[in-house]
Parts: sequence; C-alpha cells; structure tokens
Amino acid sequence: MNLFIAKIIDDKGILDDEESWHCSKVLRFKIGDSVKLIDGYGNFYDGFLELVSEKKCIVKLNSNIISQFKKNYFIHLAIAPTKQIDRIEWMIEKAVEIGINEISFMVCHNSERKVVKIERLKKIIESSVKQSMQAFIPKINEVVTFKKIIQSSDADQKLIAHCSIGEKTNFKDIVFKNKNSLILIGPEGDFTSEEIKEANEKDFKSISLGDNRLRTETAGLFVCQAAAILS
Amino acid sequence: MNLFIAKIIDDKGILDDEESWHCSKVLRFKIGDSVKLIDGYGNFYDGFLELVSEKKCIVKLNSNIISQFKKNYFIHLAIAPTKQIDRIEWMIEKAVEIGINEISFMVCHNSERKVVKIERLKKIIESSVKQSMQAFIPKINEVVTFKKIIQSSDADQKLIAHCSIGEKTNFKDIVFKNKNSLILIGPEGDFTSEEIKEANEKDFKSISLGDNRLRTETAGLFVCQAAAILS
Repeated sequence: MNLFIAKIIDDKGILDDEESWHCSKVLRFKIGDSVKLIDGYGNFYDGFLELVSEKKCIVKLNSNIISQFKKNYFIHLAIAPTKQIDRIEWMIEKAVEIGINEISFMVCHNSERKVVKIERLKKIIESSVKQSMQAFIPKINEVVTFKKIIQSSDADQKLIAHCSIGEKTNFKDIVFKNKNSLILIGPEGDFTSEEIKEANEKDFKSISLGDNRLRTETAGLFVCQAAAILS
Repeated sequence: MNLFIAKIIDDKGILDDEESWHCSKVLRFKIGDSVKLIDGYGNFYDGFLELVSEKKCIVKLNSNIISQFKKNYFIHLAIAPTKQIDRIEWMIEKAVEIGINEISFMVCHNSERKVVKIERLKKIIESSVKQSMQAFIPKINEVVTFKKIIQSSDADQKLIAHCSIGEKTNFKDIVFKNKNSLILIGPEGDFTSEEIKEANEKDFKSISLGDNRLRTETAGLFVCQAAAILS
C-alpha cells in the first residue's frame, strides 16, 4: 500500500511537487483512485484523487481519520556525522523505522565531517516513515556545535554515551518511559575527555552501551532500539 | 589498535594469507613488532612478530591469554536474504557489533534472492569482530530452504517474527537469558500463512516486533538488539 504525505486543509489533502510526481508519474494514479495520506503529525487519512497532475495532486478526504498511537517516550538523538555519509543515511532510515522523534547533528572536537545535507536526509526520513507505515515525521535539525547542543537543551533526561573509563550508568538501567531524553553519540575517535567533562557539568549523565565497541552509527541506532525496548 | 585473527598452535599464532597481507603490506608491521591476536573462539593473545611475509606471518605469543566474557544468551538468526544484498551486508556488520552467534540464510516462498556469497559475508563478519574488539567469530551457514530450517533445529527457543494477524507474543516478553534461541525473519513480502502454520506446528512461537512495519534487515538487527538488551 502506498502512503502519501499531504498538507491537510479542511477536507482536502494537498500533495507537494515531489509527492505529486510520484503519485501521478511513478505510480500512475488517476482521478477517482482512492489513496491513503499522512499529515506527518500523527494522522492517517483516506480519500480519492480529485486532481492529478505532475505538480499538484489534490485528495478529497473521507471523514475517517485514524491517529497513530503516540509512543510513551520522546527521544532526541544528537550525533556526530560520520566520515562516510552513507553510514548516517542508513542509520537514519533504520532509526525512523524503529522510532525516533528528533535528530540533531553536532560537530565535536574529533569530527572529520562538519557538513550534512539536511534536505537529502529529510527525504530519507519521509521515505522511511511511509515504508514503515507511520504517521509522525521526525524532526531533523541543522548541524550545530557540541557546545551549542549541551547548552541549549531542555530535555528532562540528558545522556552522553562514550567509551572512556569513569563512572557510567549501564544503558539497561536507563528509564525512557514518559521521559523526554536527549542522547549524545560522538564521532569516530569518540568525545574528548574535555567534552565529557563539560557535558557532565551540564547535567548529562555518562552511559555505557555495553562491552562491545560500537561504531558511531551503530551506537546511534542502538539507543533508539534501547528506548523502544526499555520503555 | 589492530587485531589479527590467527590460528594458535602451541605458543605461536599463525596468520593466514589475507591477514598476513594486511599485516605486512597494508599496516607494514615488521619483525619484532608487538601485535594482538584473537583465535575466533573467545581468546585474546599478544606477542611479537617473528616472521613477516606477504603470505605468512608468525607471532610468538606471550603467556597471557585474556578470554572474552561469554554472553549469557545464544542467538541464531535465520533470515531470508534481501533482494539488494547490501542491506544484508550492513545488517551482518551491525549484528556482529551488537552480538550474534550464528547466522543462516533461508529461501522462502516469497524470496526474490536465492543466492548469497557466503565467503564475502565471512569477511564482513571478521572485519566487524575485529572492529568491535571481540574474540568470538560468529558462525555463518550456507543457504538452505525454509523447510530445512524449521525441521532441523535443536534450539531450546524457536521464534518466527511476522506481520500477519493472529496470536503473537510481544518481543518484550521473550526471555533470551540462558537460552539458545533460533529466530526466523522472512523476506520482503513476509512469510506466507502456510509457512507460518508449518513453523507453528514445529514449535516455533509467533512473535511481534512492535507496531511499526520493519524491513527484513531492520527486523534481523532488531532481534539481535532485543536479545542484547533483554538478557
């Protein structure tokens, strides 16, 4: 089944350029065909096409709206982009499938990559949302510095995962349920001890993701799965 | 730090062709350099090179052997290979990082791919074992049919994850600790109802991996992570 992302105005669903192209040209839907839509804010709609063109498709909505069950946790992942961008791309695809609410990219001391094409990642996110039959589209933010991330958050649980020695909470003991959590994952080469100290001073709790040394993108996905499983 | 895989004979560690090439040509180690080895069966060694050539490197071992802590669960994943093989390749890389003991590939009714290059996947496994600083090398098996898999296992917990309706146990209620579990993950298009019935008759319990519809390779990784987190 194909889902389209639409802007909902009254009883109409309006597809943007790309969704319209996909609907009209790739999948060759015609006027009168019934389709399913999501608004990206948690709602599924159905209706039928009353206008079909390459640039714009309009759907007349039926009255039934189904809301996706909202998860009992909120997870904001702030991750250092990997040197090879395809590693971040697959992580994003998978994190969306599993469940994530917000993604930020941060430049750390050991970061080799400082630039990320957010528009490309937005497309991966949207595609993964539709593929996994969800109705919420996670938020993705522009790249910022590590310092900015640790200073600006109002999450009620702040965590930093790293491989350095020192006092750390095992991830199995973290409670995600009914919490808004921000989790930091460092670059290849990890956070510096200075960064860990700064984060700890800003109320970020150090956590361990287990005995195996995980790659950046594996660690990013792991925390999303841990939240899904432990909540 | 670089780890090499070696065959241990008495107080010597012998690197095969590829590891010797990597050691001598890529990393340019010389006679007398100290190196770290794993045997693939859970043990770390260190020693120094007493022979270095493109085809063969020999390490004189020090007396200290460190054994990797064995996980308290055994997980055997039997998965239908995906149409795009790179999706299976990354799943294998990540599953090894997180922890997996045995991997099988099975051809199901809806499988589009029936062939997998096991030798290539073995290399991905070995590379991921070394990257994540482990000493156990997971076992990988040749492709077999779905029927063969469900008939031949002696696992003490047999699970089949699918998206069909019917009675299913939520993955959060599965106990992995101290168990040898075999988990089946179907192809794009899922298992057929006939396959699910056959598996249920062979004592495979149907399980649900949550509300989101996961791709084959995401589901494969998800069960490895669930076992790591819930054990």
